[in-house]
Amino acid sequence: MLMQRTNQKEFIEPKKGSVTKSLILKTALEIASKSGLEGLTIGNIAETVNMSKSGVFAHFGSREELQVEVVRAYYRGFEGLVFVPALSKPKGLPRLKQMISAWLKISVGGDTSSCFFIAGAAEYDDRPGIVRDELVRSVKDWRAAILRAIQESVAAGHLKKSINAEALLFQLYSTVLGVHHDSRFLRNPKSLTIANKLIKEIFANK
Amino acid sequence: MLMQRTNQKEFIEPKKGSVTKSLILKTALEIASKSGLEGLTIGNIAETVNMSKSGVFAHFGSREELQVEVVRAYYRGFEGLVFVPALSKPKGLPRLKQMISAWLKISVGGDTSSCFFIAGAAEYDDRPGIVRDELVRSVKDWRAAILRAIQESVAAGHLKKSINAEALLFQLYSTVLGVHHDSRFLRNPKSLTIANKLIKEIFANK
Repeated sequence: MLMQRTNQKEFIEPKKGSVTKSLILKTALEIASKSGLEGLTIGNIAETVNMSKSGVFAHFGSREELQVEVVRAYYRGFEGLVFVPALSKPKGLPRLKQMISAWLKISVGGDTSSCFFIAGAAEYDDRPGIVRDELVRSVKDWRAAILRAIQESVAAGHLKKSINAEALLFQLYSTVLGVHHDSRFLRNPKSLTIANKLIKEIFANK
Repeated sequence: MLMQRTNQKEFIEPKKGSVTKSLILKTALEIASKSGLEGLTIGNIAETVNMSKSGVFAHFGSREELQVEVVRAYYRGFEGLVFVPALSKPKGLPRLKQMISAWLKISVGGDTSSCFFIAGAAEYDDRPGIVRDELVRSVKDWRAAILRAIQESVAAGHLKKSINAEALLFQLYSTVLGVHHDSRFLRNPKSLTIANKLIKEIFANK
């Protein structure tokens, strides 16, 4: 019913509705990057975009659906920052290295917000529901992309055929988790240098 | 003023007061292990222990002070589960290995709750205050203990003198973060086996 009403409204004012939805999403992404996905409430979003709570509800239906949309919006941004630049590199190790180094940049933070895949994993590991499901789906997609790049590196002869691709995925993923942890929680910027050296060694030995 | 009143009460009923405080802490630890430290409210604790909110406040003063006490209580438990068994092993690699394997057990979860040091790091990386400060202090203590065990392993001739102790600390810490992530968020139990093999390789090459 709500869906019908929203569609009807969008039919009458297509641009305004979608601009408003985008603004809400953008605001929600900013709030979530500071307070986590669980820090999102319809109330704080409504206040920031200067709308009524029911106005925000009309676009998303529920807090959980809004959080799911935020995860999807983050995923699209992640694709732009990490997947797309990697595709411009040759298949194999150059592409794999580009993926990891772009992801490391996001995880260290600075100008950009914390990586939702990492922060969200900790936030939702014990919290079942559609938000967790969407996060798991995103993270699994991302891990599948890394795994594919590892396999392409083997096929291209850049990595030995004897490597355990899943173990290498675990090792690379853990290294980024370590940098995220040290730089954001311990405010220790040295880890990025340590991690880059470690990744070089990992690839040199495989 | 509140402090004086609490002290006076404890003076009159020393046992009852401290038993109640322990019960509140125990309950708070259980809630935090499911919903995170930020999931703790004076309200949900009061409800679980069947007390008034002001009764809980009389023991802790504020929500933040209660959260700090929960971090300290977790730290004491962690010492019992991880530090103490390690001290029964000979200095050097046997002790270091025991520390990491006991910590891995906690991080995988199962019977025990999630590791607060790891879950709390993600929860408080962007949230300044006394709870974050206490968590950082605990994590730094724990990391210093691992670093000391690495240095003792070098001194005992179990690890090469040429190793970079900080890089090894990063590598071990990241590996546990990876297991915590995969087992709790992705519900992927294979990572523990991968991690144990990786740790063996790391020590064999150093």
